[in-house]
Amino acid sequence: MKTSLLLNSPLAEKLYLSVKDMPIYDYHCHLSPKEIYLDEEFESIGQIWLGGDHYKWRLMRGAGVDEKYITGEASWKEKFIAYASVLPLAVGNPLSVWSQAELSLCFGIDTPLCSENAEEIYERANEYIRKTHMSPRKLMKKFNVRFVGTTDDVCDTLEYHDLIAKDSSFDITVSPSFRTDNLMTINRDGYSEYIKKLSSLTNMEINSYSDLLLAAEARILFFKERGCIFTDVGIADFPDRIASVNEANDTFSDVLSGNKADNSAYLGFLGRIFVDLAILYRKHGLVMQLHLGAYRNPNSRLFETVGADCGCDCVGSAVCGKDIIRILDAVDLSGGLPETILYTLNPSANDELASIAGSFRNVKLGAAWWFNDHKVGIIRVLEAVSSIGYIGAFYGMLTDSRSFLSYPRHDYFRRILCSYIAELYENGEVIEEKTLYTLVNRVSYENIENLIGEKK
Amino acid sequence: MKTSLLLNSPLAEKLYLSVKDMPIYDYHCHLSPKEIYLDEEFESIGQIWLGGDHYKWRLMRGAGVDEKYITGEASWKEKFIAYASVLPLAVGNPLSVWSQAELSLCFGIDTPLCSENAEEIYERANEYIRKTHMSPRKLMKKFNVRFVGTTDDVCDTLEYHDLIAKDSSFDITVSPSFRTDNLMTINRDGYSEYIKKLSSLTNMEINSYSDLLLAAEARILFFKERGCIFTDVGIADFPDRIASVNEANDTFSDVLSGNKADNSAYLGFLGRIFVDLAILYRKHGLVMQLHLGAYRNPNSRLFETVGADCGCDCVGSAVCGKDIIRILDAVDLSGGLPETILYTLNPSANDELASIAGSFRNVKLGAAWWFNDHKVGIIRVLEAVSSIGYIGAFYGMLTDSRSFLSYPRHDYFRRILCSYIAELYENGEVIEEKTLYTLVNRVSYENIENLIGEKK
Amino acid sequence: MKTSLLLNSPLAEKLYLSVKDMPIYDYHCHLSPKEIYLDEEFESIGQIWLGGDHYKWRLMRGAGVDEKYITGEASWKEKFIAYASVLPLAVGNPLSVWSQAELSLCFGIDTPLCSENAEEIYERANEYIRKTHMSPRKLMKKFNVRFVGTTDDVCDTLEYHDLIAKDSSFDITVSPSFRTDNLMTINRDGYSEYIKKLSSLTNMEINSYSDLLLAAEARILFFKERGCIFTDVGIADFPDRIASVNEANDTFSDVLSGNKADNSAYLGFLGRIFVDLAILYRKHGLVMQLHLGAYRNPNSRLFETVGADCGCDCVGSAVCGKDIIRILDAVDLSGGLPETILYTLNPSANDELASIAGSFRNVKLGAAWWFNDHKVGIIRVLEAVSSIGYIGAFYGMLTDSRSFLSYPRHDYFRRILCSYIAELYENGEVIEEKTLYTLVNRVSYENIENLIGEKK
Repeated sequence: MKTSLLLNSPLAEKLYLSVKDMPIYDYHCHLSPKEIYLDEEFESIGQIWLGGDHYKWRLMRGAGVDEKYITGEASWKEKFIAYASVLPLAVGNPLSVWSQAELSLCFGIDTPLCSENAEEIYERANEYIRKTHMSPRKLMKKFNVRFVGTTDDVCDTLEYHDLIAKDSSFDITVSPSFRTDNLMTINRDGYSEYIKKLSSLTNMEINSYSDLLLAAEARILFFKERGCIFTDVGIADFPDRIASVNEANDTFSDVLSGNKADNSAYLGFLGRIFVDLAILYRKHGLVMQLHLGAYRNPNSRLFETVGADCGCDCVGSAVCGKDIIRILDAVDLSGGLPETILYTLNPSANDELASIAGSFRNVKLGAAWWFNDHKVGIIRVLEAVSSIGYIGAFYGMLTDSRSFLSYPRHDYFRRILCSYIAELYENGEVIEEKTLYTLVNRVSYENIENLIGEKK
Repeated sequence: MKTSLLLNSPLAEKLYLSVKDMPIYDYHCHLSPKEIYLDEEFESIGQIWLGGDHYKWRLMRGAGVDEKYITGEASWKEKFIAYASVLPLAVGNPLSVWSQAELSLCFGIDTPLCSENAEEIYERANEYIRKTHMSPRKLMKKFNVRFVGTTDDVCDTLEYHDLIAKDSSFDITVSPSFRTDNLMTINRDGYSEYIKKLSSLTNMEINSYSDLLLAAEARILFFKERGCIFTDVGIADFPDRIASVNEANDTFSDVLSGNKADNSAYLGFLGRIFVDLAILYRKHGLVMQLHLGAYRNPNSRLFETVGADCGCDCVGSAVCGKDIIRILDAVDLSGGLPETILYTLNPSANDELASIAGSFRNVKLGAAWWFNDHKVGIIRVLEAVSSIGYIGAFYGMLTDSRSFLSYPRHDYFRRILCSYIAELYENGEVIEEKTLYTLVNRVSYENIENLIGEKK
Repeated sequence: MKTSLLLNSPLAEKLYLSVKDMPIYDYHCHLSPKEIYLDEEFESIGQIWLGGDHYKWRLMRGAGVDEKYITGEASWKEKFIAYASVLPLAVGNPLSVWSQAELSLCFGIDTPLCSENAEEIYERANEYIRKTHMSPRKLMKKFNVRFVGTTDDVCDTLEYHDLIAKDSSFDITVSPSFRTDNLMTINRDGYSEYIKKLSSLTNMEINSYSDLLLAAEARILFFKERGCIFTDVGIADFPDRIASVNEANDTFSDVLSGNKADNSAYLGFLGRIFVDLAILYRKHGLVMQLHLGAYRNPNSRLFETVGADCGCDCVGSAVCGKDIIRILDAVDLSGGLPETILYTLNPSANDELASIAGSFRNVKLGAAWWFNDHKVGIIRVLEAVSSIGYIGAFYGMLTDSRSFLSYPRHDYFRRILCSYIAELYENGEVIEEKTLYTLVNRVSYENIENLIGEKK
């Protein structure tokens, strides 16, 4: 890795040096708290890299690699070699930079990975794992991580969060996030069982929509006691109206009695619960994250054979701005919005969403999400936030990752940020150089550090 | 301000020097003709900057400033200081460049504004206002403005346009633009009263849709006599069909008798009147401007407390191309289109709209509008116009502003234009350097100067 | 033309030199096989340039040229002069680069074309035509073309493809592509006659949807015998559901008996036949091309007076991703997808489509199509393919042209590609320089060469 990677000028390099080693607040990710708690030594780079990383799986599929070497029964080593064989021509894909950065920063290997050296690098990396007893916590400390926001179902027991909190040898905050997808998607199979579980966890009867909200609030309190600061939702559907409480109640009862809600009832219910959960978040000082515009499991064949998260989700249509406004406005009218972060998977909505965010107090556009977390997508978000909004208040990067090796993505982001900002200065759009240092530090970690500090 | 602000090469600087002092034809803005006529000395930079500039209000809200210092009862000075405190980190926002350019070009102040010097700069600027007796006309002359197109309701009396025209001491053309929003939105409260007013102004009975068109034409003639060249409309809804005259008549009668039109009737009526007004514009040689894709007043709370134009409008969904085509095609079939300029607030429609414009004679894509009038947005429009259309015929920049201090936006645009064009030359995409000078002058003012000349 | 045209660094120049003279596989175009077979000497540059090139017609219209000099009765020379007069200010339009490249590479003329020299250049170019006996085949050979994929109706007799294949003096492959627009658009006038023609060509009775598919398969075999590798469809409508075979059968029978299908029946039928044709393509090893998002003939007046392809098509709304997924998923479930290339005319869908492609095996995003085949549009596609997908497998450029002079577009693309790739290297995103040479050669011709080789 060039030290000047992604840094387009001496100023960009200086700015980067000012944030390079600053702490990481990874406020939205999908790490397993159990794995953090157990902190077991990794098995092999094959397993870490290819055991669950659907980014890599997609890349291999796009390059024509046989499914056997992707999600099939090939060995880790074979899979690693298959991945190495496609990496050199994955030019412009963030995996190309991330993979080399991970090799360099996590494994001390600076050789460009390719077919020819794949086996050798596989062995070197595994030896490095064994020699250093590489494990989740070691990696988190190495990258100066201060906070991770895991993503946890409303009914999650958070037992590993508890155990981690009690472990005085580990001082990185592992904060659960209140993820409500399963609570809200009333038409999915198993919803009634889910409500029974919720009822049993909260010791509350749940027979009405009001009961549901009370149970949700009980869980919010349970999460808050365990350090929860962020909430999250990422369902595919977005409501086009807000049902009355009565109607939501009817729909909910109907579903509990074994029926499916028709589409209008479902969307109305969603609208209602979006608003009511947001009101609870405001009441309890939680941050609301909305992940908008994902399309899940378009490939039925792989969904049935490999399952969800197999690398076959994709960018969905942009959510209609009017629908987002409806929800935000209703919550605002009820007494103000909680701190809210909007993420869109469809980048054609960046500007619309940035402008909607700017029309409501406490609402911000979030980081370039998932299919957008490459250089082009990150710059697009920086452009939207800075041109239409206020970059000084931007919350910056998060990994959204399931892997403990993903922290170099913060480094990737900081480099892109510094180049973006340096260019504005060199273009004359900023007058004072010292401002830039303040700004890149704010966006790299201080803004989110402050938000977390306030909400604690 | 660096002299090389936004200029990325020596050639860009040379091109810029060729247009820097050229006249400004600000063919679409929201200046008050009354204020131009009265030409009163400004009160304070606080009032000019923060009295009505919703761009600044949004920025402050996005930075978390209390509403008291935005639209609340704080003093101008307090508001100015609050604005100064957020400006340094508004990197990449056009306000950052515009504010410094206004300080420099209008107030002779080249210090970067920030919290620390806000009070001092506030006093210096106000002293400058008093010392120079700064007023609307003085600013317009200083910036070599030749023409401003104000935005005026169909029922406006245009008395200040009359008074300005009679004032031989002032030779800048202040041309009213025929804005039809209130005429077209038949479902709003007060529509019947509006029609009564129109009836009284024109001395015509208005009982049918045909009457309405006749009254509109009478007002067009009234506007034309006062130098009107441009028309405008910027309503949120866009029709998905064109009602017959009979149907439009029924809808209109129904509305006059106190009913609301249902959505289909309303959109059909809109389609009809869009077409018929365009035909009148062609007949009378007026330029038709369509502002597409705005979403008004999403934030009900601020709308109710502060009112419209409080900085809470936002980018709406892109208007369906098929619907725009329907209108353009119908007008074209009726005997040709008036000179037409299409503006989209949703930049994801730039390419679609540029290609639609190119499919009809006399239709052009307009300047980067409102949430797009930053560097990135302006470049996107230049890219769409030049790549898909014919940049040699582009009408260039307008301020769309309510402030007399906004003329530096033309300077901002000219710099961006010159850099954009210079880069194409340096890239080898243009062979002859002399062409570039012709082009940047055309786009900076000659094309619009010629259009205005033809239409006079 | 500068040798460094569009090349932004010494590395870009070196990369370009490695692909500059490599063969051209123009796998999708609209050349006339008859003209290739007859190989007649061209009449004049006026006729070649302005006889059918709707890109140039649009540009002239956008510049305000009278229709007489576009599609009217003016002489070739007058039209050429009119075109020359607008070209210098068509800065940023690809025609500006293409026209000069054609003059330089096809006619040996390196003077920048403008009004003043138009007549002289017209004469020089025509003299060059006569002197060199310039003809279709000569141009194809000059540009090292190896393969052209023409676009041919299902009912085309392919007689000229036959004649070309038998001509041993000509070794460029002219491969017919199976274009199904006329087969699928059951509501157009003349559909019944079309089916009669198909019936007669195949010697098969066509009374049902199953008959239709059998006849289509017969034609696929007929095309395959004549070297067909690619199929294509570019209709304006895209289905929002897939009818059952029974329903498709009812719709088809209804249409054959003289009725029009209502919109739902039509779209359901389209969904059905999209899927069933794809299954046939997979069975017979053909590549499926889907051209999405075009809007045809928005300008009724020019459509009625000049006809289709008069330069008045435009970018349509982006096709709904969910609808595309429905088709791809259904085909995939039936046993896998044929090799599939998705093209979108609306660039706001680039990312969504790239991500959809990446969710299915054998599906790829295609080249920047039509209104996107300028530098900005090409870079956007390269960004989408590389950031979200796997650029190592990208099929690169095609002309989509009706003109034998369009091969410089491949040169244009290769330059842009090399600059794009070189910048990633200089940015540190690629470590090994040698990889870049492999990559630009793959994308410039090897990937498509290999695909064609496999399918032969």
